[in-house]
Amino acid sequence: MTTTKELLERAKKAKACIYTLTEEKKNAALAGMAEALTENAEEILAANLLDLEAAKDRISPVMLDRLRLTPERIASMAQGIREVAALPDPVGRVLDRRIRPNGLTIEKRAVPIGVIAIIYESRPNVTSDAAALALKSGNVCILRGGKEAFRSARAIVKALKTGIERAGLDPDLVGLVEDTTRESANELMHANGYVDLLIPRGGASLIRACVENATVPCIQTGQGICHIFADETADPGMALDIIENAKTSRPSVCNACEVLLVHEALAPSFLLLLKKRLVDDRIAAGKMPVSFRLDPKAAEIVEGEKAGENDFDTEFLDYILAVRVVKDVREAVAHIAAHSTAHSEAILTRSEENAAFFTASVDSAAVYVNASTRFTDGGEFGLGCEMGISTQKLHARGPMGLNELTTYRYIITGNGQIR
Amino acid sequence: MTTTKELLERAKKAKACIYTLTEEKKNAALAGMAEALTENAEEILAANLLDLEAAKDRISPVMLDRLRLTPERIASMAQGIREVAALPDPVGRVLDRRIRPNGLTIEKRAVPIGVIAIIYESRPNVTSDAAALALKSGNVCILRGGKEAFRSARAIVKALKTGIERAGLDPDLVGLVEDTTRESANELMHANGYVDLLIPRGGASLIRACVENATVPCIQTGQGICHIFADETADPGMALDIIENAKTSRPSVCNACEVLLVHEALAPSFLLLLKKRLVDDRIAAGKMPVSFRLDPKAAEIVEGEKAGENDFDTEFLDYILAVRVVKDVREAVAHIAAHSTAHSEAILTRSEENAAFFTASVDSAAVYVNASTRFTDGGEFGLGCEMGISTQKLHARGPMGLNELTTYRYIITGNGQIR
Repeated sequence: MTTTKELLERAKKAKACIYTLTEEKKNAALAGMAEALTENAEEILAANLLDLEAAKDRISPVMLDRLRLTPERIASMAQGIREVAALPDPVGRVLDRRIRPNGLTIEKRAVPIGVIAIIYESRPNVTSDAAALALKSGNVCILRGGKEAFRSARAIVKALKTGIERAGLDPDLVGLVEDTTRESANELMHANGYVDLLIPRGGASLIRACVENATVPCIQTGQGICHIFADETADPGMALDIIENAKTSRPSVCNACEVLLVHEALAPSFLLLLKKRLVDDRIAAGKMPVSFRLDPKAAEIVEGEKAGENDFDTEFLDYILAVRVVKDVREAVAHIAAHSTAHSEAILTRSEENAAFFTASVDSAAVYVNASTRFTDGGEFGLGCEMGISTQKLHARGPMGLNELTTYRYIITGNGQIR
Repeated sequence: MTTTKELLERAKKAKACIYTLTEEKKNAALAGMAEALTENAEEILAANLLDLEAAKDRISPVMLDRLRLTPERIASMAQGIREVAALPDPVGRVLDRRIRPNGLTIEKRAVPIGVIAIIYESRPNVTSDAAALALKSGNVCILRGGKEAFRSARAIVKALKTGIERAGLDPDLVGLVEDTTRESANELMHANGYVDLLIPRGGASLIRACVENATVPCIQTGQGICHIFADETADPGMALDIIENAKTSRPSVCNACEVLLVHEALAPSFLLLLKKRLVDDRIAAGKMPVSFRLDPKAAEIVEGEKAGENDFDTEFLDYILAVRVVKDVREAVAHIAAHSTAHSEAILTRSEENAAFFTASVDSAAVYVNASTRFTDGGEFGLGCEMGISTQKLHARGPMGLNELTTYRYIITGNGQIR
């Protein structure tokens, strides 16, 4: 077994080559990775079967489904790598260039970050996605997946390394942590001098642990208590469509809506329509109905469970919607400032003034006017892909695509200038 | 006395207004701040005298001089604020804009970071500089200066608040920590939910304490073990000029050169010229000579003290230069990767190939070809000003001007789009 310490040393060694990697080399490695995944599909599926066997009584059916690989899923992972290869190279972009009065040329150029460690859950496809994004952006990656998917991840990384080596690059550009205990996550959090960026992708407790303990730079991702505010002038039909979509199209994801704020002038009529759409119509259509958590004013208007103490601070990730009636857009903005995780929020309105005030005042990564919060996603934003969705303010905010996996360097060229 | 906790609460409250501040309002506040500084010069000088009295036997003459205010220095602080006011507004810049096939308009817009806490040393002028930069970039700032300068800082902040209030803005946009014990620095490091960014400006121990302990986002600044590599093909005259400038023009600052690497083919002749320039000529001219710390190969060529164990990992901030002879540009790059703080490094060469390899491979904030490392500075880079020089890779690297004191937000406008 490779220890995490050894893995970190190897990653540091592999880093020496990244700053001079050409686009061609990187794309050749990505092509090799995709090819090797397909070639080694049987071995990967066999490892995955062992993971599924070991996990079957210990995790939920939903989790088991996420863990399961099929020939089609492996083909789609390979296709994902090819799509990343086809994206523009984020490295080498000239972000700014100026010639100073003293003749110095100052160029601000995008460069890789270095070694990126990613802690994630038991989804085998994240292993190849993350490796592809890291490699395309010129970074070394250290992957630390969930223990339920370890055998699958090991088989996948073995194949990826074969592909990288075939392209003549250092297979240590991608590394897998073999220790799946908490200790290895802890080692990554404190690997100063080895890890240039730590990206925790997972539940609230993992992210909190990283924020509180990590001494290496860390980007928080993916917690979303997303709000929709239906203003007095909202189009009710559009509002119903957007709210149903944001709440029910995929309740388990971070860009799903958890809290609805309704203008008090709209609430009396709208909440009844909302109950019909989210509860009655869905039951009639054989779909999962939404369960409300109502603040006192909303409870006066519509049937449903009353909100408990924490319901406006909970990422339900379920068919549950907290509902509060507010006086106006200012109260909506104040509520969001107090309760949001700064992921995605939307205003539904026909008032340009309120839309402008909302988008200026709500300090979240993505602020929507008359659209579903579900669009906060690298692909939907046109970034081509994403490593995660940052909910912090430094470095990157919202979907992190390839550009967000780079930093920059000033390169200054002179002919003897002194100060 | 205002407790740090109360100060944090006030800053959080002041934050509510920042996202809708106009450029005109901010510039009016900056003009008011400059005016009030001048008007209250006597009060500030009186406070400064008390600081000087209290500190005179406890700090070095150099530190005392940095602490001292004069009418001219106050006028220059006011002028500095006016210059910041004249810079372009970094907020509201549209960093990217795209219309998606589904009709969504996605705009990436620069916004303030929020509350920025700055921990700095006993230089009164930093108080007004930092406040001006924070205000111009739309941020609330919490200033925590060194205890020797506390009375001066309090008088300065009092004047700044008068100026802000006169422009009709919340004086709590600028706050001063009144507790000058370590405890308040500790409170700032753990003020999650209050402090959006912590910038420690100061010695290595403060920065290490922040990196190790802070749970709020933090940017490391200002430690510079800067290297110059004189390649085989360096022009000796230019090299002497650049090295003397980088080492001696201001040895106490972070962009001063601490380590010289010399190509083995150049070393035999060059080190003798260097000793003449940095030692003999300087003594003859009545200037402070430079003291060498020589690796074994350099010591065979030139007189000087042999390097001790830590001399290639020390920020001397003094007339001391560590010198090592290297085989080639690759060995120079490897030495820098192992010993640098990633601040500023330079190659002196006539080889385009080696210059390209060096600038591509050295992963520091600023990498120079044939120029002095002393240029790493917001003003010299044409940013107009700086809050500090970041030596980390996330968010901002190198001199942090106004743009680097902003983050961004995606604003997405639709007409009912769902996913």
